[in-house]
Amino acid sequence: MALEIGLIGLGKMGYSLAQNIKDHGHRVVAYNRSAEKIQEAESYGLIGAYSIAELVSKLAAPRIIWLMVPAGSPVDEMIESLIPLINQEDIIIDGGNSNYKDTLRRYEMLREKGIRFMDVGTSGGVEGARNGACMMIGAEKDVFERIEPLIKDVCLENGYVHTGKNGSGHYVKMIHNGIEYGMLQAIGEGFEILEKSQFELNYKEIAKVWNHGSVIRGWLMELMERAFEKDPQLQSIKGVVHSSGEGLWTVQEALELQVPVHTIASSLFVRYRSQQEDTFSGKVIAALRNEFGGHRVEKKDK
Amino acid sequence: MALEIGLIGLGKMGYSLAQNIKDHGHRVVAYNRSAEKIQEAESYGLIGAYSIAELVSKLAAPRIIWLMVPAGSPVDEMIESLIPLINQEDIIIDGGNSNYKDTLRRYEMLREKGIRFMDVGTSGGVEGARNGACMMIGAEKDVFERIEPLIKDVCLENGYVHTGKNGSGHYVKMIHNGIEYGMLQAIGEGFEILEKSQFELNYKEIAKVWNHGSVIRGWLMELMERAFEKDPQLQSIKGVVHSSGEGLWTVQEALELQVPVHTIASSLFVRYRSQQEDTFSGKVIAALRNEFGGHRVEKKDK
Amino acid sequence: MALEIGLIGLGKMGYSLAQNIKDHGHRVVAYNRSAEKIQEAESYGLIGAYSIAELVSKLAAPRIIWLMVPAGSPVDEMIESLIPLINQEDIIIDGGNSNYKDTLRRYEMLREKGIRFMDVGTSGGVEGARNGACMMIGAEKDVFERIEPLIKDVCLENGYVHTGKNGSGHYVKMIHNGIEYGMLQAIGEGFEILEKSQFELNYKEIAKVWNHGSVIRGWLMELMERAFEKDPQLQSIKGVVHSSGEGLWTVQEALELQVPVHTIASSLFVRYRSQQEDTFSGKVIAALRNEFGGHRVEKKDK
Amino acid sequence: MALEIGLIGLGKMGYSLAQNIKDHGHRVVAYNRSAEKIQEAESYGLIGAYSIAELVSKLAAPRIIWLMVPAGSPVDEMIESLIPLINQEDIIIDGGNSNYKDTLRRYEMLREKGIRFMDVGTSGGVEGARNGACMMIGAEKDVFERIEPLIKDVCLENGYVHTGKNGSGHYVKMIHNGIEYGMLQAIGEGFEILEKSQFELNYKEIAKVWNHGSVIRGWLMELMERAFEKDPQLQSIKGVVHSSGEGLWTVQEALELQVPVHTIASSLFVRYRSQQEDTFSGKVIAALRNEFGGHRVEKKDK
Repeated sequence: MALEIGLIGLGKMGYSLAQNIKDHGHRVVAYNRSAEKIQEAESYGLIGAYSIAELVSKLAAPRIIWLMVPAGSPVDEMIESLIPLINQEDIIIDGGNSNYKDTLRRYEMLREKGIRFMDVGTSGGVEGARNGACMMIGAEKDVFERIEPLIKDVCLENGYVHTGKNGSGHYVKMIHNGIEYGMLQAIGEGFEILEKSQFELNYKEIAKVWNHGSVIRGWLMELMERAFEKDPQLQSIKGVVHSSGEGLWTVQEALELQVPVHTIASSLFVRYRSQQEDTFSGKVIAALRNEFGGHRVEKKDK
Repeated sequence: MALEIGLIGLGKMGYSLAQNIKDHGHRVVAYNRSAEKIQEAESYGLIGAYSIAELVSKLAAPRIIWLMVPAGSPVDEMIESLIPLINQEDIIIDGGNSNYKDTLRRYEMLREKGIRFMDVGTSGGVEGARNGACMMIGAEKDVFERIEPLIKDVCLENGYVHTGKNGSGHYVKMIHNGIEYGMLQAIGEGFEILEKSQFELNYKEIAKVWNHGSVIRGWLMELMERAFEKDPQLQSIKGVVHSSGEGLWTVQEALELQVPVHTIASSLFVRYRSQQEDTFSGKVIAALRNEFGGHRVEKKDK
Repeated sequence: MALEIGLIGLGKMGYSLAQNIKDHGHRVVAYNRSAEKIQEAESYGLIGAYSIAELVSKLAAPRIIWLMVPAGSPVDEMIESLIPLINQEDIIIDGGNSNYKDTLRRYEMLREKGIRFMDVGTSGGVEGARNGACMMIGAEKDVFERIEPLIKDVCLENGYVHTGKNGSGHYVKMIHNGIEYGMLQAIGEGFEILEKSQFELNYKEIAKVWNHGSVIRGWLMELMERAFEKDPQLQSIKGVVHSSGEGLWTVQEALELQVPVHTIASSLFVRYRSQQEDTFSGKVIAALRNEFGGHRVEKKDK
Repeated sequence: MALEIGLIGLGKMGYSLAQNIKDHGHRVVAYNRSAEKIQEAESYGLIGAYSIAELVSKLAAPRIIWLMVPAGSPVDEMIESLIPLINQEDIIIDGGNSNYKDTLRRYEMLREKGIRFMDVGTSGGVEGARNGACMMIGAEKDVFERIEPLIKDVCLENGYVHTGKNGSGHYVKMIHNGIEYGMLQAIGEGFEILEKSQFELNYKEIAKVWNHGSVIRGWLMELMERAFEKDPQLQSIKGVVHSSGEGLWTVQEALELQVPVHTIASSLFVRYRSQQEDTFSGKVIAALRNEFGGHRVEKKDK
């Protein structure tokens, strides 16, 4: 069943998803802040819209408008722009990594206006968005069912689930990312031990064997192999790790629910530490050890 | 190329591996402490040996003897029993979860006697041992090459690697398990947040979708789905988690190498905590809070 | 210099502070929700007020009104009750453990009305409030100076500091408590090792010696000695540890500022864990280990 | 009661202790590897010995010989040198930070030779050694009693305790240091939050007020004030923190006893991290995030 969809935001994820939708025979009207990306989309066979109004006008009501814009105020701003242009029963989908509390707020606000809402947590990276994503969907049942045919097309088999009421899609995606933080950190720690060990090891071969039959096999280990293939000792890379919000939100949520999350919180702290050259806490401890034990302090170069 | 092999230890892992080897056309002479298991093995077509001496006598030199006995003193004892019975150039394989330091010690000891040694870290659980294992192998090159045809048969495709010199097989397996500890804990933390959240969620469906296209997809998530299928809320299970040694050794190794392993160490501590009803540290803190702030202390029932 | 002060909230901390203020020759008008406590205060020589209005009426403008009520909505409600009754340049002091973000909000709100505000983080427990407290004070300079004589009287020598602008008093107190969480947990861990060790040790004697000349000497160790004096093995106490908010806020603040707080966060998680009989995360891990390794699961009693 | 004592090792701690002993009227024969230190000791009124043999010869049997040499092989070597020179019932005291397992081993070895042994864990830093130390003493009762008069003199009031049988002195000192690690880290974390906060704070003033009446008052906070007095922002100091063994041993012991030590272990890991410029674990995670999400990797400068 072919659907018609407006897609806003042609970043890496958004454009890949748009192509994926189009490949499955759906009609996609695409808008992006910068015109260049729209032209690229047109050349792929998507219908370009050079303004929000144009996008809305090119869709027949009841409309489905899928947002793939950065989490936070961009989502609010886009929804504000859409409200005066769209009708009751139109559906707005937020496919980004929004904080579920924002999602609950937006859902309530739109519900009062009769506009329907759906939150989609999307995993699988750019590759997934393009070729078969994994989606966790929070929505009222009838809304979910209206869009399910399209969701089914763009996801892997068994690659989507209606997690429950609004907010739950982004919530489950948040927790997915929290788990991911912990897994990444565990993998990092393991390889750091290997790297400091007395053995001369081939990390790529190890990642490869671990991905063929071991308990920890999975996509991350597959990617690990790929990464070591490109740079066997990761010599070109700095160990600075940024984060995009969902790990933080997972820990914040855990704190509110009083769930001990030693590994997920540690993973986040280690990332924060990786972004610092030096630490004030380290200075404090070095200074104290010098005071009580006369332990030598390393001085900063002038 | 069919080989002949003596296999000692018909526990869950050992028996599955023996069957797996036999299925691939190799000749397996099997010994176990309890006779019952040997009979079961015979009924499967393995050649039973009711003593170590019998096992050795049923193998032509140079022999290959694969130990699948519990780590620690059982391995030492079995090697001691074998030494007087076997010849130079015979190969002893330790396929258990031995501490790599023991492995290095045993390797040195056997090397002086001209007996060859190979350490095999095996992953993939019972299922893997039976149908396609994942093996990390520490051995001198010629030893590895003598056994490789059999290894290739019993492992999944790409499911084995010669990690390097003796000890490295058990070492890499140890780190594998350390990573596994961290991953398990991260998954546990994630689901505990879901369980305490405001949403009503179907954990099995979530594990399933996470295993189809998400970043954290892998065997653990597949097993998670299976576990929730059997017991949707895990109501029948107590959250007591034991450990078998390799997580501990990973942390000990990390300490020696000065590698910060926040998540792997935490995972281990959480397991230790799960085995305690109450904690002395908690009593200490409760007592102190009572002293300074008059905070109420929970009293033990008489 | 004798001042006149209205004190609201005669709980453990509030009443001790009121007595302390009175002992130093200041005039204290005291209000409490329950009348009993007011009568007790009167019998000590404080001036009772049986309503907020009565309290305000018994103070000459410009007034100083010190709140010692539980953090959160009680503070807001009390401030709301006071606003219509008091004058510009009157000072409201919040001496409780308020979240500094609430303090900043209240300060702004009162400033617009011309009412002055001061936030006081108080440490030293009930003992300190009674006999010599430790206070961290956030306030505009002139407000601080108006009240300093009284502050000086009720605190230990060197036991107060004007930390800076409004909010900073509660902020510094919050961090104090965060550090306290970490210290308590470290002490708890240390004694738990002692308790499980091969040695027969006298904990009270150890706490005592550690408090006389060691690096970790301090009030907590003094209290530790006291606690072990009462109950040498802490046998009567359950290791359940609650928390009152400031540890949580410290971690939340650290997350926002991207400060790695491994020990403070862990301390909080350990407390949360102490309040749980069993954990869902433990069930998840036990179930997974059973799936991949056939490891026995402990079943719940029916 | 004046005793006669041989003291080996005139480092910071040893020399301070020797002076302290001498000040209390005891006779001290002092040996050091480098002669310079011996001359300094002589000028203070200690009796210099320029060899172990000379030291032994200048003491009347039964002798008391106090070792203040670095933990590890130096202690073993010194004991080996002493054995042929001394008599049964002579007492060797190990006043250093030895691992308690070494202490147990040395005790057994010496016991077979009839030489008595005492292990003294010393806290309080150089200041304490000079003016009033804190000592945890493992020894057989009669040995302890022979030396107690001297111990009493050099320690603060209530500043020593006979913790029990041999090994327990170093054990309790080890745990003391473990707790110290956790406390230092908690303090470090707290000040790092202050440093990143929105407030302009005077750290010295805060350390000072926290040391006058607060729950976390103690020697560490006193030293904190001193450190900030010298360098208000710790600008001259690098946050690199080394460790001397006892924190590590505490964590190793906890692992063997299955005690969850989240904060002490974290403290140690944070120190290890402080000594690394970059981390392999960080590289691994950055590489993986790049693989699955296209997240930008920071490249190393050529």
